[in-house]
Amino acid sequence: MIVELISVGTEILLGNIVNTNAAYLAERLAGLGMSVYFQETVGDNPKRLEETLRRAKDRSDVVILTGGLGPTQDDLTKETAAKVCGKRMHEDQKAKEYLIAYFEKLGRGWEEISENNWKQTMVPDDSIILYNDNGTAPGIIIQADDNKKIILLPGPPNELIPMYEKDVEPYLCSLEQGVLYSKVVKVDTLGESSVEMQILDLIDQQSNPTIAPYAKPGEVHLRVTAKAKDEKEGKALVMPMVEELKKRFGSYVFTIEEDVTMEEALVSLMQRYHLTFATAESCTGGLLAGRLVNVAGVSDCFKEGFITYANEAKIKHLGVSEQTLQKYGAVSEQCAREMSEGLAKNTGAEVTIATTGLAGPGGETAEKKTGLVYISCTINGKTTVQKFQLKGNRSRVRNSTVVRAITMMRQCILREYAEI
Amino acid sequence: MIVELISVGTEILLGNIVNTNAAYLAERLAGLGMSVYFQETVGDNPKRLEETLRRAKDRSDVVILTGGLGPTQDDLTKETAAKVCGKRMHEDQKAKEYLIAYFEKLGRGWEEISENNWKQTMVPDDSIILYNDNGTAPGIIIQADDNKKIILLPGPPNELIPMYEKDVEPYLCSLEQGVLYSKVVKVDTLGESSVEMQILDLIDQQSNPTIAPYAKPGEVHLRVTAKAKDEKEGKALVMPMVEELKKRFGSYVFTIEEDVTMEEALVSLMQRYHLTFATAESCTGGLLAGRLVNVAGVSDCFKEGFITYANEAKIKHLGVSEQTLQKYGAVSEQCAREMSEGLAKNTGAEVTIATTGLAGPGGETAEKKTGLVYISCTINGKTTVQKFQLKGNRSRVRNSTVVRAITMMRQCILREYAEI
Repeated sequence: MIVELISVGTEILLGNIVNTNAAYLAERLAGLGMSVYFQETVGDNPKRLEETLRRAKDRSDVVILTGGLGPTQDDLTKETAAKVCGKRMHEDQKAKEYLIAYFEKLGRGWEEISENNWKQTMVPDDSIILYNDNGTAPGIIIQADDNKKIILLPGPPNELIPMYEKDVEPYLCSLEQGVLYSKVVKVDTLGESSVEMQILDLIDQQSNPTIAPYAKPGEVHLRVTAKAKDEKEGKALVMPMVEELKKRFGSYVFTIEEDVTMEEALVSLMQRYHLTFATAESCTGGLLAGRLVNVAGVSDCFKEGFITYANEAKIKHLGVSEQTLQKYGAVSEQCAREMSEGLAKNTGAEVTIATTGLAGPGGETAEKKTGLVYISCTINGKTTVQKFQLKGNRSRVRNSTVVRAITMMRQCILREYAEI
Repeated sequence: MIVELISVGTEILLGNIVNTNAAYLAERLAGLGMSVYFQETVGDNPKRLEETLRRAKDRSDVVILTGGLGPTQDDLTKETAAKVCGKRMHEDQKAKEYLIAYFEKLGRGWEEISENNWKQTMVPDDSIILYNDNGTAPGIIIQADDNKKIILLPGPPNELIPMYEKDVEPYLCSLEQGVLYSKVVKVDTLGESSVEMQILDLIDQQSNPTIAPYAKPGEVHLRVTAKAKDEKEGKALVMPMVEELKKRFGSYVFTIEEDVTMEEALVSLMQRYHLTFATAESCTGGLLAGRLVNVAGVSDCFKEGFITYANEAKIKHLGVSEQTLQKYGAVSEQCAREMSEGLAKNTGAEVTIATTGLAGPGGETAEKKTGLVYISCTINGKTTVQKFQLKGNRSRVRNSTVVRAITMMRQCILREYAEI
């Protein structure tokens, strides 16, 4: 099935916002095995939108439009789509109820609902309405007479994403013969030159299920998707492949849950074993703790961290020896080791992690080039230090270090506690 | 002048990467007063690319294509563009020299240059070559016979951005009658409900120069652009408006330099007054220091920071009193004040900053709702505490806190040292 994406909004044309919706939808659709050949962005201009939509409807089976469903006069996506499909509009009673309920949730009475908001409850004939729990604009699936589908979704990601996952994806699957069943296997890339290289045989043989790899910084998501007559058959096709991938990548698989991030997987693991951790950061300068603290509930295991950017701070808070700094420098295996070991001593945390590296620009020597990073992890008195030569500019080196530190912590905890 | 953007690349169609190039180019073009009505994304498919490019060339004056200039057989942007413009290809001698120099920079001999790389030195007739310091693919401006311009740029942002700024923008300006001269005034939004509201009169009156506001998290960029016969006249038109904006926003203007970020402006200010700073973070958990450390040269003024996530860490490292924590809680004006004052005492830094807040989810009380944040800044024994009620989810509250902390530090330093 061929799907085309049209993003509507002057703010995208002006570059005021980056179009993350298109990337989100494209990735989800690829995961379903659907083809996206074109993505377009147009402003809130009915003539140009109509021209673009007619062409898209002509060459694709499904067109998804995002944005332009707001209450203002600029917002003309719905009217234009109805015109292109030759549909008249009517008022939807349930959309009115949702609108009133949404205003009440905001603590505002229905008498505050403006004429323009009521306009949002008008929908084209022969359409499926996707009621919106997070905003005033319902989504709409228009079923055109030529069997093409035009799907209208609100632009704000916090409205679009839940609506897509709850209503649109199941609808799209229903258009195919049977169902599409999919699972994601998330693999971290520490020590792996290429995750894809290790599954080339599986990719070559694939027919049903298919395996689609997506690379993210420091991780690869392998989406396994099967077409089947029902969910049960889909699961039976997908799960053996998931098991095969888990076997191949072992402890490098950090989750097979759709919405679990790398840092959440790490924090869950620490919660499972009742571990606390502490951080000592030089080159990452707080980014590592900053990312781990984004996990709600991290306070169970995280009490404190140090940003020891200067040598004096490494000595004062972590007990790194002056001799080590003089002899080997701050960016050295020895310094990294003393950092995480000193941190363990000073904080009593079961797991301590330390980063030190050359993020550049400047500071290079003949032996130490920008991108040289040492990460040290101490657990119950046992220390592992790893050396990395990372690529890219200051910001990229620092962010790559964060991802590798998270991976190292998880690997070391598994080795210590799960006896892998 | 009407400009159209075409992004070429299967990785965008699959959602593997977010299209930040389109947003970057759109914003820069809007700043030059140029109109972008359409943006498209197509894969590495010559037929679909040709169809898209022909239509774009038909309806726009300039078409900028990004991506698809790589060395592999998939990369067909250049060949397709030459075909659409009816141009033959020839080898460019200087592009060959650049290619050899680039390989040498990587420490690789020219004998390692593959057949496919040499292909990258082929260019269409009647074109301007944009030599690439950061990669193997030159950019190309094809001047078509119908006076339309097709501009081909490499996809990686670290190649595209310098090439656009150095070569493409001046070229586009040269196409207009006279020149476009522009300056950006970057304003932080602390305490300002809306920057735009304060310049509505200027926006209403504008003709030449124009003022275009772009909102970013915690800051607004006001781009002032004039059309003029030469740079001198442009400057004479633009600078009085820049001065007016500086007068209206006073110390909230953190820079009028194109490439200076909020954190760089802060670090420069501290370098100017020879100040050191230290950080103590609770809800931001390292993100604030992490962002400041992204400024190269921050080591002049940053030695150490603490992530005091737990109450015990606030007591141990910052000397917050147990009584304060019991009576007012960790998220309180009193706690924030003791954090930055204790930090000053323990580190001796001239400027100390502390964050404490409820980023959610969970932990709310009747008085303290998610998004409640206190930031405290101590300079030479004088402390300023500000209370914020921020919107959004955990990640947004934490990032908003970082931006406000940076702004507060700058404001407090200016008040103490610049006598504003």
